[in-house]
Amino acid sequence: MSAAPISVLQQFAVEALAVCGLSPADATQVARLILEADLTGVDTHGVIRLPQYIGYLTGGTINPRPQLQVIERGPATALIDGDNGMGHLVMAFAAKTAIELARNSGIGWVGVRRSNHAGAGGIYAAMPIEHGMVGIYAAVSSANHMAIWGGAEPLLGTNPIAIGIPAGDEPAVLIDTATSVSSFGQIRKHMLDGSPIPEGWVVGRSDGKPLTDPKRASEGLLLPIGGHKGSALALAIGLLAGPLNGAAFGRDVRDFGTGATAESNTGQMIIALDVSRFMPLAAFAAEIDRHVRDFQSSARLPGVDEIRIPGAQREKRRQQKLQSGLTLKPALVKQLDDVAAQLGLKALSTRL
Amino acid sequence: MSAAPISVLQQFAVEALAVCGLSPADATQVARLILEADLTGVDTHGVIRLPQYIGYLTGGTINPRPQLQVIERGPATALIDGDNGMGHLVMAFAAKTAIELARNSGIGWVGVRRSNHAGAGGIYAAMPIEHGMVGIYAAVSSANHMAIWGGAEPLLGTNPIAIGIPAGDEPAVLIDTATSVSSFGQIRKHMLDGSPIPEGWVVGRSDGKPLTDPKRASEGLLLPIGGHKGSALALAIGLLAGPLNGAAFGRDVRDFGTGATAESNTGQMIIALDVSRFMPLAAFAAEIDRHVRDFQSSARLPGVDEIRIPGAQREKRRQQKLQSGLTLKPALVKQLDDVAAQLGLKALSTRL
Repeated sequence: MSAAPISVLQQFAVEALAVCGLSPADATQVARLILEADLTGVDTHGVIRLPQYIGYLTGGTINPRPQLQVIERGPATALIDGDNGMGHLVMAFAAKTAIELARNSGIGWVGVRRSNHAGAGGIYAAMPIEHGMVGIYAAVSSANHMAIWGGAEPLLGTNPIAIGIPAGDEPAVLIDTATSVSSFGQIRKHMLDGSPIPEGWVVGRSDGKPLTDPKRASEGLLLPIGGHKGSALALAIGLLAGPLNGAAFGRDVRDFGTGATAESNTGQMIIALDVSRFMPLAAFAAEIDRHVRDFQSSARLPGVDEIRIPGAQREKRRQQKLQSGLTLKPALVKQLDDVAAQLGLKALSTRL
Repeated sequence: MSAAPISVLQQFAVEALAVCGLSPADATQVARLILEADLTGVDTHGVIRLPQYIGYLTGGTINPRPQLQVIERGPATALIDGDNGMGHLVMAFAAKTAIELARNSGIGWVGVRRSNHAGAGGIYAAMPIEHGMVGIYAAVSSANHMAIWGGAEPLLGTNPIAIGIPAGDEPAVLIDTATSVSSFGQIRKHMLDGSPIPEGWVVGRSDGKPLTDPKRASEGLLLPIGGHKGSALALAIGLLAGPLNGAAFGRDVRDFGTGATAESNTGQMIIALDVSRFMPLAAFAAEIDRHVRDFQSSARLPGVDEIRIPGAQREKRRQQKLQSGLTLKPALVKQLDDVAAQLGLKALSTRL
């Protein structure tokens, strides 16, 4: 394990993205949003994904110089064509658009088509917060790891939703959750270290029975949270983030994780909602603080040290990691060194 | 068991509500929305609740003649004060307002405060569908049956969300789900018949361990779907439906089920989103049909006869029940006869 300073990783990512053809401004923005996932504790969606992004950019599957286009714009809605660019760019633009609409109309609902994987959804749901707004992000997952309830075919993504809610003195509330019990990233860890997959995460496609052998993970289906309830949520989120925007869903989804060569046509959406249309922001923030403190000081189950409000740790984590850097596994450093060699850049390991 | 014709139940409910002081138009609307829950298969939220509603109306806890007031109205948002009226009236007005806003601005997000229990949320999420719109409903539950993840105090509702999505030749997609694994209504059935509560539904407040003895249900906490994920969803839904509207949440919630005598200040919200701001409605409807059929015709797990798309059975159920009437348990008929006696109406049992 090596600790890599954030600034070094940021510079490395900027250089790699720029060599792939992104403009300097776009490379900087994408690198910042990739590292934002690591900084806020979602390291499954951060720099660990860079080799994959670079592969798609160099292979021509993602467009490094997209012309983002607003196809439709009403008083409170917009639809954006991402021109197959990096999802981070498309979603940052969508969030900015939603915030502008909400400033004028109280709410902005912005959908995107022809986007790509955008990292951690919570990052975009958090963007409206500093404008005194609620943010809601949803997406069609970049691979189908679930079946509809009762089904045996992986036609449904673990479609995530993220919601950001401004607070006052307390940190903003930020939830960011997939509609599956576990993520495919968690399964992958068990595949790598050979430990059994906990029961309740995966069932076999052929028999619907619990699948715990990590060597058989590819024969499995991830289970939705709450059985048919999570399946229904994944369905509704997917239809609103995908087909409503003219983006891929169901049988149209190509697995981002297994080297697809065709455009993904990823669909995502974001809502910004201006709190001041409902009550003065300060009064709302005080109410959120009060409720957060009520929960934090409420009685705990045996063995629970602390009640964690989603989002409460984000700023603390950021400050810690800005100080300590990121602890990267040797395998990841090796992957990033390979990326550097391929792109003619100085190896990451020699920069640490 | 007796089969009660819908028209007889509707007339009975109208009379009962009118005796409680509702205007004839309001009594008719509320009765229709109560029975709509039964007709669409959510019988836990239909006529079974009438005795409770009547109790609150006669006891002065719910206002029979509310003056609904639009406190704030922007181009795409509104906040409504329900004046402590029946939740069905408040939410029907909120849905109408959201649809109007969406017609002009593409989207309407309408929050309500000082409302009450409104029956089945799916009814309101379905209202925008016939206008070519998506509907999204969310609410703070009328009692706290969950704790925040790690907590031992019931400070969180099983806060529900319902989403309606228009289709073409296929029935509209309609999801309506609480954020808990089971509902309190399901627990109550086990309490009544003495059968063990399935593991995974309830944990004990004192030890956090599975609680399956129905006699001890009152010592339990309902579990959220997906553990901390469902807890986070319930938190976010609750904050947006409650505090954002100036409505009750957390420690402010009074248990609707146990004879509260103070106003509940229930918070709910509804979004209407005009599909045609994103693509022509016919093209969208055809896409939803295609995806629904893909799921329905996809491979099934062993033992699964049919893949059920949420909402697909609603119209069929309605037609069946309009024909067959509702099969009411004798205990419910007795309760409704008691209501009739109290209000000076002809007993339900003599009308069947």
